[in-house]
Amino acid sequence: MSVSTVAVAGLGIIGGSLARVFKSVGFEVLGIDSDDGTLSAAASEGVVSEDSFNINSADESGFRALKRADVVFICTPVLSIVPVVRKLAPFIKRGAVLTDTGSTKRVVVNSVKEVLPKGVAFVGGHPMAGSQYSGYGFSRVDLFSKRPYILTPTEETPPEAVETLKALILKTGAAPHIMTPEEHDRIVAAVSHLPQVIATSLVNAVRESDSGSGYLKLAGKGYKDTTRIASSAAGIWVDILLTNKDEVLTMISIFSRQLGELRRAIESSSAPDIRSIFERARQYGNGRSEGFGCNDRR
Amino acid sequence: MSVSTVAVAGLGIIGGSLARVFKSVGFEVLGIDSDDGTLSAAASEGVVSEDSFNINSADESGFRALKRADVVFICTPVLSIVPVVRKLAPFIKRGAVLTDTGSTKRVVVNSVKEVLPKGVAFVGGHPMAGSQYSGYGFSRVDLFSKRPYILTPTEETPPEAVETLKALILKTGAAPHIMTPEEHDRIVAAVSHLPQVIATSLVNAVRESDSGSGYLKLAGKGYKDTTRIASSAAGIWVDILLTNKDEVLTMISIFSRQLGELRRAIESSSAPDIRSIFERARQYGNGRSEGFGCNDRR
Repeated sequence: MSVSTVAVAGLGIIGGSLARVFKSVGFEVLGIDSDDGTLSAAASEGVVSEDSFNINSADESGFRALKRADVVFICTPVLSIVPVVRKLAPFIKRGAVLTDTGSTKRVVVNSVKEVLPKGVAFVGGHPMAGSQYSGYGFSRVDLFSKRPYILTPTEETPPEAVETLKALILKTGAAPHIMTPEEHDRIVAAVSHLPQVIATSLVNAVRESDSGSGYLKLAGKGYKDTTRIASSAAGIWVDILLTNKDEVLTMISIFSRQLGELRRAIESSSAPDIRSIFERARQYGNGRSEGFGCNDRR
Repeated sequence: MSVSTVAVAGLGIIGGSLARVFKSVGFEVLGIDSDDGTLSAAASEGVVSEDSFNINSADESGFRALKRADVVFICTPVLSIVPVVRKLAPFIKRGAVLTDTGSTKRVVVNSVKEVLPKGVAFVGGHPMAGSQYSGYGFSRVDLFSKRPYILTPTEETPPEAVETLKALILKTGAAPHIMTPEEHDRIVAAVSHLPQVIATSLVNAVRESDSGSGYLKLAGKGYKDTTRIASSAAGIWVDILLTNKDEVLTMISIFSRQLGELRRAIESSSAPDIRSIFERARQYGNGRSEGFGCNDRR
């Protein structure tokens, strides 16, 4: 399928970055957002087209611009995806490919089926990129460079739709990974959702212990690194945790067992047990090669 | 007290960095280590003097060089501090100030008392600097720049010894903080030891869930940031956890309660509860101002 126009609904850090990179590689980008300020900013930067529109506009005549789009990306918080698709459905052309960038997939893939317009293929998607920051102001053209970008087709998904998206993903600099929605949710529960739950709980534990004494003045890289993501936006995480509940609860149990083992090793003052627990973690690695520097280019 | 020579026993990332900065501000630095390679490297860089010596040397005549030192820093893992002080004690001059850089203080301060030579003052110390890396190869002259450096004098500590160390600390670029050994151990249990325990348990939880599937290929900043310190050297952490056991266990309990609250909020699919837990963490902050970039200059 030949793609010339891409629509991006939700111009946050993810949608904004997709808009930027697609524009940079020669596509026309139609922007859709619920905030006029964001739409103006993106249009004035030339990132999105002049007929980009506000999804909450009372006058839906402008929505017809969406008919131009060959591919439509929904880049809103997970629980907004279905309402947004429902609203845009009448204006998506037959033969277009619809996808999302939500952080969980099973619930999204199952529920979008209910509101998907005829003749439009849907493929669940999730770029593993970004940080604790949110909003168009943090979008960047290289956000997806060398990052994994997951697609979760089902048995019903037309293969051409997957191929179309894979080609677009490659243009963002990302590497496409194909897996089932269930497999996706299990993996992100481990490498993304559990770390978030842990970081948030850690901050709240230190806060409780601190009781206003100013502990954070003495906090170093150890505290800062482990709690950096705790400043992520609450709203996004509510949606994620509610739509990946079972996998997240499973990971919390696994974590609690591991913590319990280390706690018992400390309680029994067992140097060999503590050492072997630390060695086990050290060998599994932290997803980076030794000596790799900081990845945050801000 | 006028200081011209400083001795540093243990030329790891902390001791090596102290040696570098003290040398750079005009002191003569005598180096002591158990590894000849480290001693050669430091001497060839001109960081430590030519009569620096190996503490395990069968011939202790070289130890006499220590008599020159006005201040002696013990920069070994916590449980090595007393054996090292015991060995060096006969060679520390009367009137010298002895200090350490161990990550826990109560056990150190209480046990050094037993082996402290007459006429030598001891002040427990702990520079809140460094990272998960260890060894002389990671030492740097600016490691302590703008970092807190804690001193834990007791009622028996001569005030002049504290003043001498405060002046030295300021020369490293660090900010001295005075508190009791108990207060120190409580704070570091919260902002340093708990994060380490959590990071290690998190890595082991993901490892257990992964079971060789290659989850880490999809890990992003969230996982990397929260687990970075899990690659810290096991030996150092065995000593720390064993010598701050009670405070660490207290913090693990507080953390478990916080995690339990979040778990219940997820179990009951309560968006308001999840949101308020996340908001509480976000407001307490992560010890950095918004938008602060990465602190790792490697």
